[in-house]
Amino acid sequence: MNKAHYISGLRSVEQLLTGDTAEIRQLYAEYQTANPRVQAIITTARQAGIEIQPANRARLTQISGEARHQGVVAEVRRSTLLDEGALRTLVEDRLQKGDPMLLLILDGIQDPHNLGACMRTADAAGVDAVVVPRHGAAGLGPTVSKVASGAAEELPFAAVANLGRVMGWLADYGVRCIGTSDKADSSLFEADLAGPMALVMGREHTGLGKGIANRCDTLVSLPMHGVVSSLNVSVATGICLYEILRQRG
Amino acid sequence: MNKAHYISGLRSVEQLLTGDTAEIRQLYAEYQTANPRVQAIITTARQAGIEIQPANRARLTQISGEARHQGVVAEVRRSTLLDEGALRTLVEDRLQKGDPMLLLILDGIQDPHNLGACMRTADAAGVDAVVVPRHGAAGLGPTVSKVASGAAEELPFAAVANLGRVMGWLADYGVRCIGTSDKADSSLFEADLAGPMALVMGREHTGLGKGIANRCDTLVSLPMHGVVSSLNVSVATGICLYEILRQRG
Repeated sequence: MNKAHYISGLRSVEQLLTGDTAEIRQLYAEYQTANPRVQAIITTARQAGIEIQPANRARLTQISGEARHQGVVAEVRRSTLLDEGALRTLVEDRLQKGDPMLLLILDGIQDPHNLGACMRTADAAGVDAVVVPRHGAAGLGPTVSKVASGAAEELPFAAVANLGRVMGWLADYGVRCIGTSDKADSSLFEADLAGPMALVMGREHTGLGKGIANRCDTLVSLPMHGVVSSLNVSVATGICLYEILRQRG
Repeated sequence: MNKAHYISGLRSVEQLLTGDTAEIRQLYAEYQTANPRVQAIITTARQAGIEIQPANRARLTQISGEARHQGVVAEVRRSTLLDEGALRTLVEDRLQKGDPMLLLILDGIQDPHNLGACMRTADAAGVDAVVVPRHGAAGLGPTVSKVASGAAEELPFAAVANLGRVMGWLADYGVRCIGTSDKADSSLFEADLAGPMALVMGREHTGLGKGIANRCDTLVSLPMHGVVSSLNVSVATGICLYEILRQRG
């Protein structure tokens, strides 16, 4: 937690500035630019009392590890990274408050674009935290931050040693795990999606691992009416999360 | 129509071979490769009587205009490209049969990845045709084909001179246009989505153009519960199309 982290790109930095600006340690920005959005970011950051460091393009690329920074890079404190203990505390807290808790468990997404897209969608759907395995899967980074459009800085994120163990204690708390599988007997739209819940999505191409699928309380499929054999994981995640929201009303 | 067109990449070509192989004019493939999927594609194509041309990597890149061809490029006849007249015939045909017609109108998607992702999702949801403006928007190409995972070769696609005019004659046929807008008064989940319909999605960042929004019968929004201000257009498209499918039962 509180590890330094860089967010680049106009949209992501603009989003960051609309949130808790105390999270921003400093802003690196290209002063010699005609882009009015960069100028507006500098003005907003200055008004918020954020320290601003002028930097040229090469320096911004070096800082952010990303060539497509569009002239702005923010250094942020990350207070949204959870370890397994902090995730458990978050779950207990939500359940105690009687909130309709919703987690998104991603069983080994490989492509950071897909992870970023899932986080953007999860944030929009009001997910409480995203949980991924610590090994063998994409983690947070500049690509994820950029694609997530600000969500990666706001949405609690836990990279855990053992997803199965987490699903085990979720079950003890009465949190249902709903997995998606093209081999499931019932459709998403037939499932009862009320109550505290974790949506469990598999990795690209191969889907849910067997051990993880076995730990799910229910497996559901999405109707497929065309020639393609699967949906992109972030699209499938969006459809499932919004069906959960719809059922909750 | 019937313009030559190149499809590259293992997944896209495999998908193509499971469909109507008469659409494939010839296959260019790298013979000197250890990749068993390339070998399997060559075997399948040979069994289907498709002419196979050996080609090295550089030649495949030249043919497909795409460096990530993975050793296989298929030249196909495109019979899915519709002009406005052919689109009208398709609509009349579907309505006459009493099918629950569903079109996807994309008002100016800029990024070919997003267009490809929308086509993959539209195919899965059983959309009858995708309609885009001919100018100022992404068109079909190798990136779209690759991201669409086979859908770009199967799903009827119309690039029209004037989207508003198409929406005009759709209204004359009693086809309702449902647009999405973050300024809409009602939520997607409150809308009645029965009957022949066109879902109308706006472009990245700016959404639906005013003229197009005015031509929609209903505007709906997706609930947003987090910090991000919008969903990716292919995710939003997926959520809307699957809600239409759900309501149709």
